[in-house]
Amino acid sequence: RISWISDVVVVVSPENIETMKTIIEKYGHKKVTVVEGGITRHRSIFNGLKVFAENEFYSHLLQKPEVVIIHDAVRPFVEEDIVSKVVMAAKEHGAAGAIRPLVSTVIASAADGCLDHSLERARYRASEMPQAFLFDTIYEAYQQCTDYDLDYGTECLHLVLKYCKTNAKLVEGTADLWKVTYKRDLYAAESIIKDNLSQQVCVITSVKETLAQVGFLLPESLKNQIKVEAISLSLSKTDSHLQNIISGQCYNFVCVNDKRYAIQEIQELVGMLEKSNIPLLYPVVLISVHLDISENNSFSIGMEDLTKIKKFARETKKKNILVYGLLIQYK
Amino acid sequence: RISWISDVVVVVSPENIETMKTIIEKYGHKKVTVVEGGITRHRSIFNGLKVFAENEFYSHLLQKPEVVIIHDAVRPFVEEDIVSKVVMAAKEHGAAGAIRPLVSTVIASAADGCLDHSLERARYRASEMPQAFLFDTIYEAYQQCTDYDLDYGTECLHLVLKYCKTNAKLVEGTADLWKVTYKRDLYAAESIIKDNLSQQVCVITSVKETLAQVGFLLPESLKNQIKVEAISLSLSKTDSHLQNIISGQCYNFVCVNDKRYAIQEIQELVGMLEKSNIPLLYPVVLISVHLDISENNSFSIGMEDLTKIKKFARETKKKNILVYGLLIQYK
Repeated sequence: RISWISDVVVVVSPENIETMKTIIEKYGHKKVTVVEGGITRHRSIFNGLKVFAENEFYSHLLQKPEVVIIHDAVRPFVEEDIVSKVVMAAKEHGAAGAIRPLVSTVIASAADGCLDHSLERARYRASEMPQAFLFDTIYEAYQQCTDYDLDYGTECLHLVLKYCKTNAKLVEGTADLWKVTYKRDLYAAESIIKDNLSQQVCVITSVKETLAQVGFLLPESLKNQIKVEAISLSLSKTDSHLQNIISGQCYNFVCVNDKRYAIQEIQELVGMLEKSNIPLLYPVVLISVHLDISENNSFSIGMEDLTKIKKFARETKKKNILVYGLLIQYK
Repeated sequence: RISWISDVVVVVSPENIETMKTIIEKYGHKKVTVVEGGITRHRSIFNGLKVFAENEFYSHLLQKPEVVIIHDAVRPFVEEDIVSKVVMAAKEHGAAGAIRPLVSTVIASAADGCLDHSLERARYRASEMPQAFLFDTIYEAYQQCTDYDLDYGTECLHLVLKYCKTNAKLVEGTADLWKVTYKRDLYAAESIIKDNLSQQVCVITSVKETLAQVGFLLPESLKNQIKVEAISLSLSKTDSHLQNIISGQCYNFVCVNDKRYAIQEIQELVGMLEKSNIPLLYPVVLISVHLDISENNSFSIGMEDLTKIKKFARETKKKNILVYGLLIQYK
């Protein structure tokens, strides 16, 4: 996703290595190397760093970078901006890390389980991720640190301070950098993903007269809530306007049709989406509306089409394309 | 909700006092006194405490308690158990507060924005709420503390340590005590409320033969996911079994009917629920299923009933009873 990152090393516990490799293959990630983790945080990070330096362990050594970024998978919402700031600060200072204000006061407890003292909240910060380091600095810190550090330590910034006398630059991060820790955090993460989904919809209607009104009114009523592209056409692979909309990262489509077997047009659109590779990053939503305004419409005939779409949708779901069918009858 | 709490003082910013009074009246809270907040946390808490001690400010002074609990509205998921533990500890030690392990390492920054030192995570805790104090202790601390404390301090445990030499007892709290701070936390809170909603459903079918099968099969298919009470009856105000289910805090109902105008039965059930007062605490969900298995069923006739239920549902929503209509036609 970030073009100036040359290699991504993913450190995974032994039992999840196969799953991780399957994910990497499925989504076509090219820069990723999978490394087996250790039993503690620091041992895992050290294993990841060795891929760049110790060819006794790895047959295919990666090229040693000037700066290495360390990040947690439990903080999925990291923007390029903060990564870039942390890297630039690390180039200058040798080490850098994202920080956030403390949400609660931090206190020290005495041996008897009572309050010893409380810290003045304004003077302290929560250390978050990403962090970045000159590779030689962090690697030296890991080589020099003790088994106690590797087993009980948690803070990379502390290691470079202790073993390399490097005071990391602290960079204010965004609220979205929080650590997904509890079950409730999964719901919070879901809400952020939903907020970030494409706020654009493309309404596709055929050129027929009966649908011209729908093709005009639907975008009109949607446009207060979402950015709308309305196109009126018979779907065709050579349509460049539709191609542009797809490559412009539009993830939502409404296709309005008045004829039966509209499923063929949906299949063509799904084909175009697949080729564009955009469903790899986020799910694409495709709503096929079957509008029946004929005099002799029958509920059961419409249902047949919906049943076909349902079957087709089960297939496309595996490709991250969510197809929905909607039947509207109006006499 | 907690019977051994004699008074609840809610400290509210001046512009929200009327809203708060409306809420208190709507939900019939009896023990609540509303007090105007100050411009900082400590000034607001001090205002709340004065209701028990300074009759120059309040015409109707509340009886001074032995122990006072201080809690934040941004931590809505506080269980009686932790409140009780904190109160008992405060009785013994003069002060007590809930704590949680730190999620991130805490660091101190130097004046140049670089790392000064990091704290050993295991030795520190996040101070959360609720906290409890002997009333005389916390009130003395607030009377003695400086304007600087009142304007810039945030920690009540710190005040009683500094001014009353009282080392608060620290009590391990649950993860649900976190502070609802960011937009994402609202979604997290919603997920916890959903998890805590009644996991019980009551399926009500009439005694008619045509529905007997549904009355048997629906509970059968639901019972793997949720606790199901199935009753087969004509709704009647004197039905004691249904009364027992309602007073047993069941919040979900499915009523299956095969006749038109089933809305009268739904109205009766809504009446019973209203009298029980249970919708005051959590929303009640009521799904009215109109099952049409007659030979000459017509889609439009069923839709009429749904339209009536929709109108009725708009009224009941104000009473925290959510009514849904479902029309099933089967030839």
